[in-house]
Amino acid sequence: MFVKIENIRVVLVETSHPGNIGAAARAMKTMGLSDLRLVAPQQFPCAEATARAAGADSVLEAAQVCDTLDEALEGCSFVLGTTARKRSLTWPVVDPREAGELLAAESAGGEVALVFGRERSGLTNDQMVRCHQLVNIPSNPEYSSLNLAAAVQVLAYEVRMQLEARQGVEEAPVADDPVATADNMEGYFRHLEKTLVAIGFLDADNPGRLIPRLRRLYARARPTLNEVNILRGILTETDKSIVRAKDGKGEAGS
Amino acid sequence: MFVKIENIRVVLVETSHPGNIGAAARAMKTMGLSDLRLVAPQQFPCAEATARAAGADSVLEAAQVCDTLDEALEGCSFVLGTTARKRSLTWPVVDPREAGELLAAESAGGEVALVFGRERSGLTNDQMVRCHQLVNIPSNPEYSSLNLAAAVQVLAYEVRMQLEARQGVEEAPVADDPVATADNMEGYFRHLEKTLVAIGFLDADNPGRLIPRLRRLYARARPTLNEVNILRGILTETDKSIVRAKDGKGEAGS
Repeated sequence: MFVKIENIRVVLVETSHPGNIGAAARAMKTMGLSDLRLVAPQQFPCAEATARAAGADSVLEAAQVCDTLDEALEGCSFVLGTTARKRSLTWPVVDPREAGELLAAESAGGEVALVFGRERSGLTNDQMVRCHQLVNIPSNPEYSSLNLAAAVQVLAYEVRMQLEARQGVEEAPVADDPVATADNMEGYFRHLEKTLVAIGFLDADNPGRLIPRLRRLYARARPTLNEVNILRGILTETDKSIVRAKDGKGEAGS
Repeated sequence: MFVKIENIRVVLVETSHPGNIGAAARAMKTMGLSDLRLVAPQQFPCAEATARAAGADSVLEAAQVCDTLDEALEGCSFVLGTTARKRSLTWPVVDPREAGELLAAESAGGEVALVFGRERSGLTNDQMVRCHQLVNIPSNPEYSSLNLAAAVQVLAYEVRMQLEARQGVEEAPVADDPVATADNMEGYFRHLEKTLVAIGFLDADNPGRLIPRLRRLYARARPTLNEVNILRGILTETDKSIVRAKDGKGEAGS
């Protein structure tokens, strides 16, 4: 399968140290990655970032600064988040090797994102629910403090290994029903939440863990665009049938 | 086979920038390597090295400074050198994956060394002849300037991957929420069909391909029992809210 390296973007969320942004840009460029998105960086642009980027300023110059993670994930059909934990009860956690394979394979069919959280704390739960899977870089349990650029380096290296292994083998098949993008899915989840409140299944003031659980379920399914349209169609008819029934205009379903 | 990580030493030859020594020590320690040998470093010890090492000063403190490469390689039965070239007429050049396998396998039988040359120029021919094999880290041909610590990080990571792969089998996490059984799923699909008819999304007389498509979607997700219960809860509330709205007993969701 073909790797479309230009379809792979690196997303750095709320990075504290501009030097890390520069070093990450350099790590990306050495491996051939060039699409960098920065979600609410503390300082950017910044001379320190440029200094640490060494010759990779082109990556910094083209970097898109976004207000939210959702904005940074726009158009992505596959999102891989990084985590310091080896296992999660709620998300599949892969190793960097598998991550490289996944990113490479998914890049053939659409845009994909590799997401890094804040230096100290990593991704929040709310950010993780945007991810289809998580990747953990194995490390020394007594000293696991890989810095951000080192983590970018390892994962970008695994992407490069895939690229070199697959270079020029076959063309990607054209999907007639592409996987839904992150923004398609966010639109669906917003609609779902509204409808669940309307039918009385979700308490808007006290939502609990319901939506995150449903997000994980659908993340595993990786719905196609047509499937998301079906799911939204169900919500739209649910909304309408409540209104119809209230108005007494006739039987629901008629 | 067992990996003896304590048998794997990292040798940095004539390093120009002390910051690189510190960053390399950090990269080593994150992956569990601790034996560092420095051949004729330009400046060492040095505050900049310590600063870049972050919490890995123990590696720096234990580092042995040697006058010659031969001294640094003493006791080694296998020596792997790094090179910026993909091929060599005179030495076998492996990729980092194979390098990790080689270092891991050789470490079981004796001491082994992974050697990095000067930042700008790499290993000289005279230094290469000390190596059994060479390793090349794949990179972007237009920008292949991995810094020294990044190169150490990638190779140390491959050693760690071997260590973890060979380290006994880990226990699978115990699932507190088992995957739903086929009969759970059939119960759900029957309910789904009824509700979709009730809200007017599905024509019972002419159902088309809707249910089979939804079946495929949920089959991919492999829902757990708890998740199926949530999905059925949504259907139950949808059913009720239509009835409630029709009866005019109040707002749906109240």
